[in-house]
Amino acid sequence: MVMKYSNDTILKLFESALAQFQTPEEPELLYSPIIYSMSGGGKRLRPVLLLLTVDAFGGDVEAALPAGMAVEVFHNFTLLHDDIMDNAMMRRGQPSVFAKWGGNVALLSGDTMLIMAYKHLARLESEKLCRVLNIFSDMAIEVCEGQQYDMDFESAEKVTVEDYILMIERKTSALLSGSAMIGATLAGASEDDIRKMYRFATELGLAFQLQDDMLDSYGDEALGKKIGGDILEGKQTYLMVQAMCRASSEEREVLRSTHKNPLLSDVEKIATVKALYDKLDVKRFTEQQIEIRFERALAVLNTLSIAGERTKCLEEFARNLMGRKK
Amino acid sequence: MVMKYSNDTILKLFESALAQFQTPEEPELLYSPIIYSMSGGGKRLRPVLLLLTVDAFGGDVEAALPAGMAVEVFHNFTLLHDDIMDNAMMRRGQPSVFAKWGGNVALLSGDTMLIMAYKHLARLESEKLCRVLNIFSDMAIEVCEGQQYDMDFESAEKVTVEDYILMIERKTSALLSGSAMIGATLAGASEDDIRKMYRFATELGLAFQLQDDMLDSYGDEALGKKIGGDILEGKQTYLMVQAMCRASSEEREVLRSTHKNPLLSDVEKIATVKALYDKLDVKRFTEQQIEIRFERALAVLNTLSIAGERTKCLEEFARNLMGRKK
Repeated sequence: MVMKYSNDTILKLFESALAQFQTPEEPELLYSPIIYSMSGGGKRLRPVLLLLTVDAFGGDVEAALPAGMAVEVFHNFTLLHDDIMDNAMMRRGQPSVFAKWGGNVALLSGDTMLIMAYKHLARLESEKLCRVLNIFSDMAIEVCEGQQYDMDFESAEKVTVEDYILMIERKTSALLSGSAMIGATLAGASEDDIRKMYRFATELGLAFQLQDDMLDSYGDEALGKKIGGDILEGKQTYLMVQAMCRASSEEREVLRSTHKNPLLSDVEKIATVKALYDKLDVKRFTEQQIEIRFERALAVLNTLSIAGERTKCLEEFARNLMGRKK
Repeated sequence: MVMKYSNDTILKLFESALAQFQTPEEPELLYSPIIYSMSGGGKRLRPVLLLLTVDAFGGDVEAALPAGMAVEVFHNFTLLHDDIMDNAMMRRGQPSVFAKWGGNVALLSGDTMLIMAYKHLARLESEKLCRVLNIFSDMAIEVCEGQQYDMDFESAEKVTVEDYILMIERKTSALLSGSAMIGATLAGASEDDIRKMYRFATELGLAFQLQDDMLDSYGDEALGKKIGGDILEGKQTYLMVQAMCRASSEEREVLRSTHKNPLLSDVEKIATVKALYDKLDVKRFTEQQIEIRFERALAVLNTLSIAGERTKCLEEFARNLMGRKK
């Protein structure tokens, strides 16, 4: 028996479920931002991973759609609230809800979305509900913890590489690994396979986040990627924490202070920090780490109890996520 | 068979469950505000009503404690987020989480509390879980809608008495009526009794909110109640919407503008508005309405399928809530 769905058909199936997403009309300032947020595009990575996992383990994909809705609504909820905390005016090339309607609306519409995510979950078959509910809530709390650690790091004296990995395991990986676990659970996978799907998605999430960090400094501007945003914000990234742990104390001072140096232009700030990254060989270390995490993720797939052809779509999902053909 | 618990013993039982409320230690800025919020007192009205209802219908009160925790954690979550939206520095005579840690912390700790509320629900027996989950989420969304309507009213041209009642049905009553419905559901009450408990708590919540509105203008300062806060903020209250619908167009202008008149002291502003309230007989209308709502709530209790002595504690709860001996 082969899988019923490809990555593309799963996405289409989910998009058509999403097209039926409805809210009451009133109060308008509560629900319009929710519609705006949910219809603002995005790659629907988390529901696609969830539904692909259901299919890989021979589960009922259509019956799992409410769980896909729940993780997607939850993801969009985090964007609304993150944009308040980060004062972020743009999201997916459009004004953020925060920019368009203000903090109070983004706050309350976000709260409503979090509750809506649970309403979607409550549509799942009651036999699996309790288990899925717990995976979902644990995942959701990890995402909040990750966001708090991320904010803590802004003013932290020292962030180790281990601290940083623990943070993105929560902030980025948890939602992917939770989605994979929910999918496996709904399909009736064994505890062992559920655990392995958690490992797969965790490692994949780390690889994805480290690559995202790297592209901010070494991405291709020709591809429309603006370079150096993280450097200008003085953000902790994998490159920065790696650089800090390899730098001399003078270099560390430069890394710490360049983004707030009023004598430098933005271009000079980026050039200064990147020159140190180059000197400290940070790019190579990051690339190595991405490779290790990505390979680990793929390796986990081979240890699942299901036949190899059933994991093909998961492998394809992983490659797509990392922007790799093969 | 009589009820096993009184109002006092239910409260004690709940407080001892609450004393076991724990969170992880880290990240500290996420969890300290939650501990601070949950241990900051409060009357625990919603869990007490929930557990009293369980007992009245002969259910297992101890098994319902997680649901009590869920509504109490949810209530405190709303306070954290409301204080951000209202810029409120004080809560229960202490600095609010917003004042003590700032908006971002209050936002993220609040989100975590909302998720924690669902984690408590997931501990309920799986047979009732789906039903309770839906009542809880519907109630939670109504609370958000109520908060949005309340904010809408700040800049609304005209708020009718009906609009105002619909708003407080959501913002104040929904959490009480949801608690009562969850309690009845957990105890296995009939659909008819569940609906009646909804009516009881809705009317009681309205009576309570209208009384709260009235005490802001006509409370006893000797009892430590500061008079006129709502008037100075220019807030929509039952008294204000009643006054607006009875006033001449000149009086309406006075009601609308007094709170922002820079030529008046606070004492003068309060006196000006209260003089109009007196003239328009607003106090009497409000008292009548409180009486009607309160009597309706009590009358519902007599129509429940359970024996009269089983509803005594609910009646006592209602009287306590309104600060009445008899």
